[in-house]
Amino acid sequence: MIGTFDALLHHASALGGKRVVVAAPRNAETFEAINLAASQLHATCILVGDQDAARNAGIDDRPGIEFVPCSTTERALSTCMELLRDGRGDILLKGSVDTGTLMKAVLQPESMLRTGRLLSDVFVFEYPARAQNKLIMITDGGITLAPDLKGKSELIANAVEVAHALGNPNPKVAVLSASEFVIPALQSTVDAAALSKMNERGQITGCTVDGPLALDVALFPDAAKEKGIRSAVAGAAEILLAPGIEAANSLAKGIVSFGGLRLAHVVMGARVPILIPSRADGSDAKLLSIALGMVMAGAFTR
Amino acid sequence: MIGTFDALLHHASALGGKRVVVAAPRNAETFEAINLAASQLHATCILVGDQDAARNAGIDDRPGIEFVPCSTTERALSTCMELLRDGRGDILLKGSVDTGTLMKAVLQPESMLRTGRLLSDVFVFEYPARAQNKLIMITDGGITLAPDLKGKSELIANAVEVAHALGNPNPKVAVLSASEFVIPALQSTVDAAALSKMNERGQITGCTVDGPLALDVALFPDAAKEKGIRSAVAGAAEILLAPGIEAANSLAKGIVSFGGLRLAHVVMGARVPILIPSRADGSDAKLLSIALGMVMAGAFTR
Repeated sequence: MIGTFDALLHHASALGGKRVVVAAPRNAETFEAINLAASQLHATCILVGDQDAARNAGIDDRPGIEFVPCSTTERALSTCMELLRDGRGDILLKGSVDTGTLMKAVLQPESMLRTGRLLSDVFVFEYPARAQNKLIMITDGGITLAPDLKGKSELIANAVEVAHALGNPNPKVAVLSASEFVIPALQSTVDAAALSKMNERGQITGCTVDGPLALDVALFPDAAKEKGIRSAVAGAAEILLAPGIEAANSLAKGIVSFGGLRLAHVVMGARVPILIPSRADGSDAKLLSIALGMVMAGAFTR
Repeated sequence: MIGTFDALLHHASALGGKRVVVAAPRNAETFEAINLAASQLHATCILVGDQDAARNAGIDDRPGIEFVPCSTTERALSTCMELLRDGRGDILLKGSVDTGTLMKAVLQPESMLRTGRLLSDVFVFEYPARAQNKLIMITDGGITLAPDLKGKSELIANAVEVAHALGNPNPKVAVLSASEFVIPALQSTVDAAALSKMNERGQITGCTVDGPLALDVALFPDAAKEKGIRSAVAGAAEILLAPGIEAANSLAKGIVSFGGLRLAHVVMGARVPILIPSRADGSDAKLLSIALGMVMAGAFTR
């Protein structure tokens, strides 16, 4: 099992040869991450956009880095979609384009990247405090605004696919809320109960689902014991399904900001893994996301 | 301004003489916190419930600790309400009673503790990373399930009252979401815009409100700058209004768990401050909440 970010980087570099299509790269952290991906992870990075920017950053003449010059962002995006559609790229990495514009290009029928599944962003954290090294996932803090029950079951499926690719064959999924009780007036607790039952009935597979669980009960055995919650997931959760984008986003940002933990993330549900690092991510976080994308791309072709 | 927990403890101990009515105390952390409140904060703690439990914990014969023996939890609760109604107590502290049962007793008309305002739980964090020491508030991760726009404006009012009592005359309120843009399909961003305007129009006073803001943009000047958000609140938020109980609860628990920060909290909106520490809180966290309650009780009588 890939239980640490070091193992993730190692595994990605051993995969080699994955082709990362980069949409309109322009900022220093992106170039730095591309450089590291090519040199350390043996990825091939195809930079689609303004070649002068890359030249100025000094990465235009290195092994593993290729160029497809495009004068406008619009052209760069349509060129990226062509490369991916035609199987000349394995992973899409957002450069200096906003996420909405990028996702719109991905979702266009002529891009042929849709699979009929919901697209969602899966955050992956290294969580060294837990005895057994495991990567923890939080979803969806990036794309799906207000998932309904069906949407939530698809968010679980996407995160479970990431867990499987990381070598965790039956991840424990905690459906987060603010309570462990079903509260009729709090829809997230009702949905959590429904998702647990869907898992029991074989409608959600490849994982063990329980909820509602508050964050502490989901992650920490002591909290689970203190509250008297008996559950295969409580205290041992590996995937945290938040009730909505605001909760997932603020939880993830809180963990990064206050806990100093690192975050990788990948958008699942399309025909290729899509990486949408935020402008605020440093090159280290971007490199981890590229490694995650490479491992997902490896899993897709198995 | 009270900008640190040390200052909060100091200020509370200087107030002295506040009477903390404790509903059915039974566990060791509660007794330890009561003991510290009496000895260090010079509070008078009125323990309403099973005197044997207190005797076994060895705190039945100390200055500042009084007893009102009650044989059942139900009796203990009604006695607490009488004490508070009759002005013989200043603060209500939950012992080993569940929060729902306690709040039901508070909300009964005969308790005369209601004010017509919404009751909400205000979390207070010490945030030493920020240059100027300030306590940061998050609300509501404890009581209000799914506030609508009117509810959110009342949550702000309650948190602002706490900020004022801590000596911050015009707190900066960030209305959290997952984005800084108004997204019609994401109600929390629409509500955030409405709350900002209500503040501009003088419908929400005593503070400066801006939103929607994601957590990093709300708290960190670098993130605000990176995203190009011009706002009196971005990068400097002192009150974080989460869109719902799940987001507030998981954000607060994430900060405590991953950031190792300490948390005090107080329920505002009733005639007296109400303290509902969780079972998982240690005596240190409970003592901080008692100090916070004392400062709020001091503010109420000004």
